[in-house]
Amino acid sequence: MSSEVSDRDNALFEAGIKLGALYHQFVGTPVNLDTVDELERTIESCISLQPYVKEVSVHIDLEIIRQNLNRFGYCELTGRMLNVHLVVVMGSTQVTARLEYDAELEYPLMRVEEISG
Amino acid sequence: MSSEVSDRDNALFEAGIKLGALYHQFVGTPVNLDTVDELERTIESCISLQPYVKEVSVHIDLEIIRQNLNRFGYCELTGRMLNVHLVVVMGSTQVTARLEYDAELEYPLMRVEEISG
Amino acid sequence: MSSEVSDRDNALFEAGIKLGALYHQFVGTPVNLDTVDELERTIESCISLQPYVKEVSVHIDLEIIRQNLNRFGYCELTGRMLNVHLVVVMGSTQVTARLEYDAELEYPLMRVEEISG
Amino acid sequence: MSSEVSDRDNALFEAGIKLGALYHQFVGTPVNLDTVDELERTIESCISLQPYVKEVSVHIDLEIIRQNLNRFGYCELTGRMLNVHLVVVMGSTQVTARLEYDAELEYPLMRVEEISG
Repeated sequence: MSSEVSDRDNALFEAGIKLGALYHQFVGTPVNLDTVDELERTIESCISLQPYVKEVSVHIDLEIIRQNLNRFGYCELTGRMLNVHLVVVMGSTQVTARLEYDAELEYPLMRVEEISG
Repeated sequence: MSSEVSDRDNALFEAGIKLGALYHQFVGTPVNLDTVDELERTIESCISLQPYVKEVSVHIDLEIIRQNLNRFGYCELTGRMLNVHLVVVMGSTQVTARLEYDAELEYPLMRVEEISG
Repeated sequence: MSSEVSDRDNALFEAGIKLGALYHQFVGTPVNLDTVDELERTIESCISLQPYVKEVSVHIDLEIIRQNLNRFGYCELTGRMLNVHLVVVMGSTQVTARLEYDAELEYPLMRVEEISG
Repeated sequence: MSSEVSDRDNALFEAGIKLGALYHQFVGTPVNLDTVDELERTIESCISLQPYVKEVSVHIDLEIIRQNLNRFGYCELTGRMLNVHLVVVMGSTQVTARLEYDAELEYPLMRVEEISG
């Protein structure tokens, strides 16, 4: 059975696009405790430009940065450090999604948290 | 009204993740007519490793490569060149999605083509 | 004839690393006129963390952004927009390098501008 | 004291560009033991397109892949896995450079191995 693509379907698809894009655009970026706030705000600004994004907040784990600082005083942004909260709206549907490291799976898991409207 | 997240919802979300990831991982890669086939196959292999991907085929436009070759004989992979067909399966739901440059929008559009099951 | 690797040699090598890294880390990032300043400062901060960087200034061309805005009101960072001035110091040698689009070559050219010390 | 930019200087600068570019373009790419050979060859092909590259060989550490496989059977390419040997030629100067993880520094170190001609 095939079916029409609804606002809900598209909102979910768009939420996935944003998290996949964010992850693969910014992983590898040099970061330390002095620059982490600025990097968080800039990732938020960049992703907010993409269509249908209502809200995005990026939190990078300070403790994991601290543990990974190399002898030059910085490390690279990795999936393990990232906690992203994203809200996408399409028509009357709002999707809330999250990227968060799952310690049990050892995986930067992206998941749908809520669908409303 | 909030609601449960179904297989269909997750399949759509996962399809978006894969296209967003592919785009932002590989855009910027040096390519020319001699290496384009190999690059297409490698992008397919890499994205196929990600969960729930049933099928992915990548086509890079030879004519746009040709037009964009610099004096050193190559160019960079851009969204304008990419045509990607992706099938994601989650439970009994199958989602077919595409990334294709939309000349009218001047935008590398990602869209859901079909949802079945 | 082989030869020792001097501070001058290493400074030049390091300058190249930084420009290659900057380019391939950030090309593809969504940007528009509202976010361009923030993105410039963040790229500068990130690259400044890498070893031996004394100074880096990033300028993104506003006119090219304007010309490339898609219907959603943003575009992607490309090599054509980037003008980067970098100073690397190693021992007593200072290397000044630049990344700038060369319209004649149609190429985002990286070049050594000055070596001193 | 300022000075002219020689072939040797430019060869070193270009070698740095290639390693910085390779690293930040491909880190984050999904990989496992089935796809690692293909990914190595493709990275080599892509970087070989860039100007002045005479030779590049990429080796990704199988043991580190094995240790980092997630429950979905793959991992991401990281600096820790990469061993790259690069030869750049400019005029009569040949530079050999390497990217290799330095366990003591806990850093994916790029260094000049030899300069000849």
